[in-house]
Order: sequence, then C-alpha cells, then structure tokens
Amino acid sequence: MSLLVVGSVAFDALETPFGKVDRTLGGAATYFSVAASFFTHVNLVGVVGEDFTRHDEAIFRGRRIDICGLERAPGKTFFWAGRYGHDPNERVTLATELNVFAAFRPKLPPGFRNSRHVFLANIDPTLQRSVLEQIDGRPRMIGLDTMNYWIENTPAELREILRHTHVLMINDAETRMLSNEHNLLRAARHIFSIGPRTLVIKRGEYGAMMVHSSGGKDGIFTVPAFPLEEVHDPTGAGDSFAGGFMGYLSASRRITGGVLRRAMVYGSVMGSFAVERFGLERLRRVKRREIELRARHFANLTRFRL
Amino acid sequence: MSLLVVGSVAFDALETPFGKVDRTLGGAATYFSVAASFFTHVNLVGVVGEDFTRHDEAIFRGRRIDICGLERAPGKTFFWAGRYGHDPNERVTLATELNVFAAFRPKLPPGFRNSRHVFLANIDPTLQRSVLEQIDGRPRMIGLDTMNYWIENTPAELREILRHTHVLMINDAETRMLSNEHNLLRAARHIFSIGPRTLVIKRGEYGAMMVHSSGGKDGIFTVPAFPLEEVHDPTGAGDSFAGGFMGYLSASRRITGGVLRRAMVYGSVMGSFAVERFGLERLRRVKRREIELRARHFANLTRFRL
Repeated sequence: MSLLVVGSVAFDALETPFGKVDRTLGGAATYFSVAASFFTHVNLVGVVGEDFTRHDEAIFRGRRIDICGLERAPGKTFFWAGRYGHDPNERVTLATELNVFAAFRPKLPPGFRNSRHVFLANIDPTLQRSVLEQIDGRPRMIGLDTMNYWIENTPAELREILRHTHVLMINDAETRMLSNEHNLLRAARHIFSIGPRTLVIKRGEYGAMMVHSSGGKDGIFTVPAFPLEEVHDPTGAGDSFAGGFMGYLSASRRITGGVLRRAMVYGSVMGSFAVERFGLERLRRVKRREIELRARHFANLTRFRL
Repeated sequence: MSLLVVGSVAFDALETPFGKVDRTLGGAATYFSVAASFFTHVNLVGVVGEDFTRHDEAIFRGRRIDICGLERAPGKTFFWAGRYGHDPNERVTLATELNVFAAFRPKLPPGFRNSRHVFLANIDPTLQRSVLEQIDGRPRMIGLDTMNYWIENTPAELREILRHTHVLMINDAETRMLSNEHNLLRAARHIFSIGPRTLVIKRGEYGAMMVHSSGGKDGIFTVPAFPLEEVHDPTGAGDSFAGGFMGYLSASRRITGGVLRRAMVYGSVMGSFAVERFGLERLRRVKRREIELRARHFANLTRFRL
C-alpha cells in the first residue's frame, strides 16, 4: 500500500567537523521518501522553485517514488544553511530562506486522495490539516512530525491536527515542550489524551523510544542509535527514521506490537545510514541487503539472555 | 567468590522535586555493597566518623556484607548535600564536608587480601593504587570508577591505576574528558590503549553502553534506563549499577560476552531501584524476585524479531 508524504524539499548548505557542502538536495520529504521507498511505494507532495533541475530530480528516479505532486513554482527552492559541532545537537542555523515554500499550499493529485498511509512532515499544522481534508475516507495510519515553533505559536491548530494523528514522531525536547512534562512517560500519557495512540521520541545519539497508549510495560520499546565512529552529517536523520518507520508499517498487512517494534528498528537503520555521509549521499546508495544486515546488527546491540 | 569494594560511606542531605531529606546514609561504597550483596558476598573497606551509629550500620546487617574493613575515625563522617532539578543531570552541590574521609588511607583486613574481584569506587587514584598493592596475587576482575576531578588533576596517577583495571565504569562526560574524543567508540579505543578491556559508559536517563576491546559490532551492547514515572532521587544510581554489574560478574563461573551483557542488565536493574525512593530506602527493601522480574521487564524493552 502506498504512503503519502507532504513536506519540504530543499537545498541545504552544511558544515560539520567532517566537511562542508555548499548546496545539496535535502528537505524532510526528500529524506523521508528515499528512506521509505525501500519498503513501499511513496507519493510525494511538496514544492520546488525554478532552480530545481532534472538533475536534482534524479534522486527520485528508479525508486518507488511518485513526484507528480511535486509542484514547480516561480522563484527559488527552500534553502537552509547550518553548522554542526562534534555534538550533533549543537546545531547553528546560518540561513533559512523559505522562498517558494513560504506560499506552499499542499495540493493532492487525484491519484493521491485515497492514501491509506500518510506522513505529515514538519510544516504549519494548518497545512497539515488541509492535507487530511483532501483525503477520501479515513487513512489507516497518519504519522506526524512538528517542532518547537508550532508548539509555541500555533498550539490550538497543532492540537486539532493531533486529534487525527495516530503516531506522533518528535524529539525529547519537543515532547517535553508539548506536554509541559519533563518525565517522558507522563508526557506520553498527556499526548495520548490529545489523540495519538503511539508516541515515537527521537533521541539523536541515544536512539529512539516508542510509547503506546496501552500503558503497561509492554507498551514501551527502545532502540539505541547505531554506534558509528563518524557522524558526517546529522541532517535528515529524523526524517529518514520516519521514512523507514512509516515505510515498514505501510508494507505490513497488520499493525501489531511486533510490527511497530520492527518499524522502530528499520527507522533507526535508515537514520543511521543517513548520517554516514553528507546529505543523501549514503542513503541514495544503500542496498536492500545492507538494510537487512544493519537490522541484524541492531538486534545484536541489545540482545541478551536471562 | 567475594567482592571487595573500597570507597566512601557518607551522610547525604538531598533535595529533589519529589522531596527533601536532611540526613540519610549514602556514599558510593554503601550503594555499591547493598546492590552487590544480592549477587555475591561483599567485603567493604571505608571510613566513618564518631557520628556513625549502630543504627546506621543496620543497612549492612542481614546481608552478605562484611564491614570489618569499615574503619572508625575520630571526627565526623563524610557529608554531602545536593539538589537535583527535574532533569537529574541538573545537580547542584550545596556542601561537601570530607571530614574523616580527607585522611582516609584504605587498609585491607588480612581476610580481604586474597580478593579476586575488586571495585575501586571513585577516590584518589593514588589510594586506589594502594588498595591493589595490598592484594595478594592478581585479581580476576578489577572495576574502577573515577570523576572529572581526578581526570583533570591527577592524570598520571589515574593512568597508572587504569593500566591495572579491567572494567572502567564512568559516564559519557568523563569518557570524553579522559579520552579527549567526543565519539564514544573512538574514546573507547583510546581507553583500551591505556589498559581496560571493557568500558561501561553510564548515561543516566539514557541507560548504559558497554564496549569491549574485541572491537567488532559484537563488542558493543546497550541497555536502556528503566522507564520510571518518578525518579525520586538519582543519588547512588551509578554506584548501585556498578554493584549489580560487579556483583553479577563475581558470582559467575566464567566471564563470557553473554555474562557481561547480563551484568549490564542487573546493573541497570539495581540502578533503577536505587532512584525510585530517597537514599537507600528502596534498595534496602528490594526482594530477589523483584530483581528477576525487573530484569525480564528490561528484556521486553528492547526485544524484537526480524
């Protein structure tokens, strides 16, 4: 079953302790759809400017990614420039030029309107809502990402879209800010009271944690980050994680606790590949068997017998 | 086989978002020995002052802890006062009164000199060295804790004791400071070049990570922190972890990769009990079957099938 993603497609300028690139393709929807395409068919909705060439488009070709919803608008593509320190959380934004993204109003091509799986990447909650309004029927699984800006500035709109969300995928700081709770289990309980049944907390170098509304101990699952000696570029790790996670779920007949756990692992696998090189360099070259091999490495990181 | 621990016995005054205690028994060797005593016989070496009563001693009675190495000195017992925020890492030290601990020179009773398992809690590396000099033969397993103060101020002495250490158990910040490497895998490699074959990195709310000198992917194991809704008092978590870890190893006939992994789990179990209540309140009431039950909960936190 195919998976709809709505979010940013961008050019990034990146500086990390391992190097520097002046302009590389990025954006949440780009990382997400490349990662998800290893598991399922992806329908992408986003906007690019006149500077986005057929060469840039190449990343989507030869993959199960339909870009008929990638709108071309007059002007320049969203541009972001940032610098990371040795600690990937030390991120400094050097430039944010929204360009054509500022006026982005997601329009679903008719063929995308019956999507059963939807991922709303981090954009204005009002736009996220407008996406759901264009979908016929009730999707089986709606995943959502957001950020501190929307939590602070559009709390009512965010709450409204969360009422329709099944899986919320945010980081620890966002979890605490949204719930006004430092403890992540209480924070999860607060978030469940708004709508989502599943909270996936992305914790960067510490991996990820999933909490289900089932509540009990069985409802909590953690996966470590893959130990890498060099994290070349943390950009896109969270979106690649979301792509692996949602892609795996979309391809699963039933969504059980075990399937959600495997989705967490495949999400972590895709996130770990994303950070190995700059931009999409590594992710675009990943082979399916490398994904399986890394998933087995993940199993070995936490396996023990009592 | 019995386990020798040398370190502080103290009185603590604690303030956390969940309450306040003016004077409770604490100290690294206390938490360590209570935690380890569930797995093995513990021989404790430390010092207390005249204010340490038979009532305070009660914590050790009825457990497999030999305190004939707990010296009484004229003066007052080591006293520490601290305050924690909602983030347990936000620790403010309000008072440190070394008292009798300032002149502590560990003296092993004759019966302790043939110890095969030794844990050198966080004290001056020169004193840690003097403990090893009092031991006959080569211990099977020497674990060591240290802190930023010794890393900065006595690097040569610390290096010397590390040459004899099998398992170094420190937190992420200390790992980075000691190795001058941000990346934990490279940091581990640096530490292996000094002496230890195993590095256990304590990461507080993110759990713990073990790296062996074997190098490959099999040499890395992670365990999450146990998800608790209320961390009443983080004091002693690391020492209780060390107690569970070293206690489990001491009781194991052979030290294999699987045994080290289980030791990590039992360490995490004991650490998770320690923080549930103030001081040693919870740890002193733990039952062996609660330990086994929690270990199974730990297994469930990370279990998945591919």
